[in-house]
Amino acid sequence: MKNKLRASVFGGTGYTGIELVRLLLNHPNVEIHQITSRNDKGKRADEIYPSLRGMYDNVLISPEDADLKNVDIIFFATPNGVAMEYANDLIADGKTVIDLAADFRIKDQTVWEKWYGMKHKSPGLISEAVYGLPEINRDSIKKAKLIANPGCYPTAIQLALIPLLKMKLINPINIIADAKSGISGAGRNSELKLLMSEADEDFRAYGIGGHRHLPEIEESLSNICGDNVKLTFVPHLVPMIRGIHATIYVECEKEFEAQSVYNQFYAKEPFVDIMQANMAPNTKSVRASNFCRISFHKEKNSNRLIIFSVIDNLVKGAAGQAIQNMNIMFDFPETAGINLVPLTP
Amino acid sequence: MKNKLRASVFGGTGYTGIELVRLLLNHPNVEIHQITSRNDKGKRADEIYPSLRGMYDNVLISPEDADLKNVDIIFFATPNGVAMEYANDLIADGKTVIDLAADFRIKDQTVWEKWYGMKHKSPGLISEAVYGLPEINRDSIKKAKLIANPGCYPTAIQLALIPLLKMKLINPINIIADAKSGISGAGRNSELKLLMSEADEDFRAYGIGGHRHLPEIEESLSNICGDNVKLTFVPHLVPMIRGIHATIYVECEKEFEAQSVYNQFYAKEPFVDIMQANMAPNTKSVRASNFCRISFHKEKNSNRLIIFSVIDNLVKGAAGQAIQNMNIMFDFPETAGINLVPLTP
Amino acid sequence: MKNKLRASVFGGTGYTGIELVRLLLNHPNVEIHQITSRNDKGKRADEIYPSLRGMYDNVLISPEDADLKNVDIIFFATPNGVAMEYANDLIADGKTVIDLAADFRIKDQTVWEKWYGMKHKSPGLISEAVYGLPEINRDSIKKAKLIANPGCYPTAIQLALIPLLKMKLINPINIIADAKSGISGAGRNSELKLLMSEADEDFRAYGIGGHRHLPEIEESLSNICGDNVKLTFVPHLVPMIRGIHATIYVECEKEFEAQSVYNQFYAKEPFVDIMQANMAPNTKSVRASNFCRISFHKEKNSNRLIIFSVIDNLVKGAAGQAIQNMNIMFDFPETAGINLVPLTP
Amino acid sequence: MKNKLRASVFGGTGYTGIELVRLLLNHPNVEIHQITSRNDKGKRADEIYPSLRGMYDNVLISPEDADLKNVDIIFFATPNGVAMEYANDLIADGKTVIDLAADFRIKDQTVWEKWYGMKHKSPGLISEAVYGLPEINRDSIKKAKLIANPGCYPTAIQLALIPLLKMKLINPINIIADAKSGISGAGRNSELKLLMSEADEDFRAYGIGGHRHLPEIEESLSNICGDNVKLTFVPHLVPMIRGIHATIYVECEKEFEAQSVYNQFYAKEPFVDIMQANMAPNTKSVRASNFCRISFHKEKNSNRLIIFSVIDNLVKGAAGQAIQNMNIMFDFPETAGINLVPLTP
Repeated sequence: MKNKLRASVFGGTGYTGIELVRLLLNHPNVEIHQITSRNDKGKRADEIYPSLRGMYDNVLISPEDADLKNVDIIFFATPNGVAMEYANDLIADGKTVIDLAADFRIKDQTVWEKWYGMKHKSPGLISEAVYGLPEINRDSIKKAKLIANPGCYPTAIQLALIPLLKMKLINPINIIADAKSGISGAGRNSELKLLMSEADEDFRAYGIGGHRHLPEIEESLSNICGDNVKLTFVPHLVPMIRGIHATIYVECEKEFEAQSVYNQFYAKEPFVDIMQANMAPNTKSVRASNFCRISFHKEKNSNRLIIFSVIDNLVKGAAGQAIQNMNIMFDFPETAGINLVPLTP
Repeated sequence: MKNKLRASVFGGTGYTGIELVRLLLNHPNVEIHQITSRNDKGKRADEIYPSLRGMYDNVLISPEDADLKNVDIIFFATPNGVAMEYANDLIADGKTVIDLAADFRIKDQTVWEKWYGMKHKSPGLISEAVYGLPEINRDSIKKAKLIANPGCYPTAIQLALIPLLKMKLINPINIIADAKSGISGAGRNSELKLLMSEADEDFRAYGIGGHRHLPEIEESLSNICGDNVKLTFVPHLVPMIRGIHATIYVECEKEFEAQSVYNQFYAKEPFVDIMQANMAPNTKSVRASNFCRISFHKEKNSNRLIIFSVIDNLVKGAAGQAIQNMNIMFDFPETAGINLVPLTP
Repeated sequence: MKNKLRASVFGGTGYTGIELVRLLLNHPNVEIHQITSRNDKGKRADEIYPSLRGMYDNVLISPEDADLKNVDIIFFATPNGVAMEYANDLIADGKTVIDLAADFRIKDQTVWEKWYGMKHKSPGLISEAVYGLPEINRDSIKKAKLIANPGCYPTAIQLALIPLLKMKLINPINIIADAKSGISGAGRNSELKLLMSEADEDFRAYGIGGHRHLPEIEESLSNICGDNVKLTFVPHLVPMIRGIHATIYVECEKEFEAQSVYNQFYAKEPFVDIMQANMAPNTKSVRASNFCRISFHKEKNSNRLIIFSVIDNLVKGAAGQAIQNMNIMFDFPETAGINLVPLTP
Repeated sequence: MKNKLRASVFGGTGYTGIELVRLLLNHPNVEIHQITSRNDKGKRADEIYPSLRGMYDNVLISPEDADLKNVDIIFFATPNGVAMEYANDLIADGKTVIDLAADFRIKDQTVWEKWYGMKHKSPGLISEAVYGLPEINRDSIKKAKLIANPGCYPTAIQLALIPLLKMKLINPINIIADAKSGISGAGRNSELKLLMSEADEDFRAYGIGGHRHLPEIEESLSNICGDNVKLTFVPHLVPMIRGIHATIYVECEKEFEAQSVYNQFYAKEPFVDIMQANMAPNTKSVRASNFCRISFHKEKNSNRLIIFSVIDNLVKGAAGQAIQNMNIMFDFPETAGINLVPLTP
């Protein structure tokens, strides 16, 4: 046991946190050193999540009481604004930090502060943080000490768009992402609209005025692709627990073979599955796994291309991707601990 | 319009309240005079429930601001303990009161205060209140000014048991009711356990230590049947929105034809449907309707009889039964406003 | 009873059929004369649908044995291709016919035969049939003997687009309709992909290669608006039973006040509810009702307008609209029998 | 790779089959040699189950074409009646057989033939087959060549009852098991009643006349406990995909400490979790895992004990238990491949 990486999970009782715990317990090279929870400190983790009974029975501790010396990596599965309070000291102390919230996702501090409605507390770290999308930033991730783990929508949408944008095949300012998410994406918050009586047997759009994932996607895609990328992004709530499905409409600027573009771009990626044209990826086919499946359909007699992308919002859209980033940083096999077959039915 | 009954709904934004509003809007002899809501006063009803858009657009008022003069009947779809504060004055004033909460369901004040954890504020009215189970108490309901509308589980379970208990066919102290309820039965409360991410794809028992509907059932059945009735009652939460299903195990004390006992007992009841032996009533077959469907199975080589009973917890288990009681009290056709075909699929 | 309209329902055991039965039983001016079912003939209707117990207990008859003399109106809730076999004789005989399937929805016979893969058997009636979208064709419907009841997606999408297209406010050939449907839209067919174990907790697009509702929408909108309308239409399957949600992306060709355009266009419509800009209509707010709710969002710094439209696919998208058409044809109040409050929760 | 156990899965496209594949792919000591499917032979496994894309891409073969030489263990996830056709030859050939269907679960051939409606084709093997409930039969399983993997209900119910029956603490002929199952228990069969439109938002009992798991439970418990055990068993269908919940009512014949009885009996079991009295185990806490969680409640002033038991019907109730049996037979760590944290949310 002594050679295992010692991991701390901050905010372990949200849905991202418990999924991180599930996956870390399955990881051959890591041990969970501690889990913090501001609300449930003092209780056993398996009291909050009986799914952990027999697998993890330690007590949840207050973040103030966390041992920050004897750990190697700290995952922040906390609300926005928490990681930025701890990151400076932790990194100065040689620790590795992965923030699953949004504190370091946006490089433009002004934009970030506008969308997240708070003052950034570690502005000096923003440029140092690496946006943890392994398919694009693997080399930077390898050398990073601070990872900004991408949002769930941004992961599904960017993986679908990057190959086309990088190769200048589509109009970067005429993109529509009609996205749909299972309700776990809204977190473990006791709000009326998330009650089963309200949300089940219902479908609606939300965040119509503007969703925080929009500036993240636009900035990240612009950085990656060198163009000013502009998106129409409409998220919807699906009456299911897990899964994100993005239907993306783009305007082709030249003729190209989408199939081979995608196949080549993701040829060596362990978690990106390019399906054949006109197949429809479904969210259940990635449930509880780290896969992103992508397909597309080229409209006849038009220059419109439609792209479909699915992930499990809690895995490739959060905890699984965080572990993939950790694996890259610590030179573990990239699939270690997250090489799981999706759960069907 | 001027000859219609003027109804007030107190607590109109809970699930029982909104269902009452839906059914009252469908009633030919009633108009909704006002709806109160402590939490949402000042907002339009159809802002809280967009399902009301185009059907009811009045503003929700504070209970303190309610007009209690120009109304004929007041429905309390409020939490327990509210109706008992108003009932004395209202009845003194000649109004009719139907309490959909529990304030007047239990005749034994000591038992009530123990289970509901509060002091009763209108003890003088307890004996006057009529337990609003029309199939049993129709004559008393006709003359009543104050109705204690039965709980949802008690309705489903009692309708299944009364014919057998009244005719002394079964052992009154060896009864098991294994009951299952959709999640709307837990109300519109922002609690973690009611979140869709928690409750969907899950099944569990709850209230194991004791559920408040148990003393209601035992006392009411004992009163109706003249025996001391004792029940084992285990409620469970079903990952669906509406519906109660009770599976009841009883010990026959003599030979009898259950089919004809049930058929005769409920021969004239508009809302009790006795199915053939061995059929399995399903909750969807009563969804959004005031029906209770009952079937049963006699075990071979044993004296055990198994009874199945289903209702929609928000209709026959709450708002529909309240209107049925109102219809009886005001001499409307008993099915007025609630003669609805269940919603399928 | 003798002055009531006598209605036949052909194909009464599909989901459209049973919904029609539910609504007809609620209609003050109609009686159900007979229900046919090829598969379930000889069985009682309430044996197939226990929800009908106590409301309708007649036997389902074979279509061959149907009494076509003593009926006034025949609803075809049958598969595509059935109504066209009966329509000629029935209309010659003075009967009124409403086809809830697709036989008469598309005026261009060649297009119809290509998409539906069969030869049309009543080509002479195609031009006579009136497309039963009351909000547009009320006057023609009044005089019609044969109604082609619109598809579910076409209803939701067209009601959202017609005001803008009629007034030439948007580009008619740059429209994207990203549509989502509950699973009852796929009908009561025993297919693996419709099993709860498959479809629940899943989300996916389907019909990517082309959906039959596309030519219907394009032809109808072109007819209504006088332009050649072209649509990108991508349907998706939502893990819920009822409801359609369309998210529609259009390109504005001039400046206009969408709110007042919609408000004025639908000012007198009993079933179209125009919500305020940026509100998000949800499918549950129309469940079990004939409402269509529409809202929209104008993007800043772009000419893109996003429109949201929701209906219950089995009501406004099928049976409710059929009854609305019947009401218009027979001069009943247009809301008779379908003036129902949506079911919440 | 060459030292791994070579496993065949017969009937790999049912829900039990695909779950077996998921778990075997996660097993460190096994490789899947082949998967058969009568209906889908010739197709790639990941075409039927896209969840397998990237994890298993071999073609499904006809059972007739299966290689039965170069395999070590054959799992039958086929319908009842298939394993008994192959078992004799396979065992004669030195192979190990685990039947996840019912062919060898009941020792009394007459009873089996009555309940399963067919003639047994390998009567000689019935007595040789070991009932694969590891918690009871671990020693026999170690030496077995043919395992009858228990049914899902029988697993949940027996684990709850065995400690009490073995110690003669309860009346063996007064037991009620009110059991509830998610719909995946009904298999991947295209039947109307399993459609999402039918089964979702519904709850009902089924198999009222008699369920095949009843004789299995009664015979097995009688064998294990030496008494003639008699059960009232009522299964119900829950609108969720996975999970079994049994609520069991028994009559205590003496005073005893249920907590310590259970704790001691299952002290060393890796997959049986005894919770504290009055806790309510929930199915989601075992989803996708091999755990069985058990709790209980002792009624005051009566001799009735209520026991709650939950499993995932596809794991501990089928595929997981099969692998647990395999692990025991081949001396792998008993938790190998199935030491998975339940999936939450």
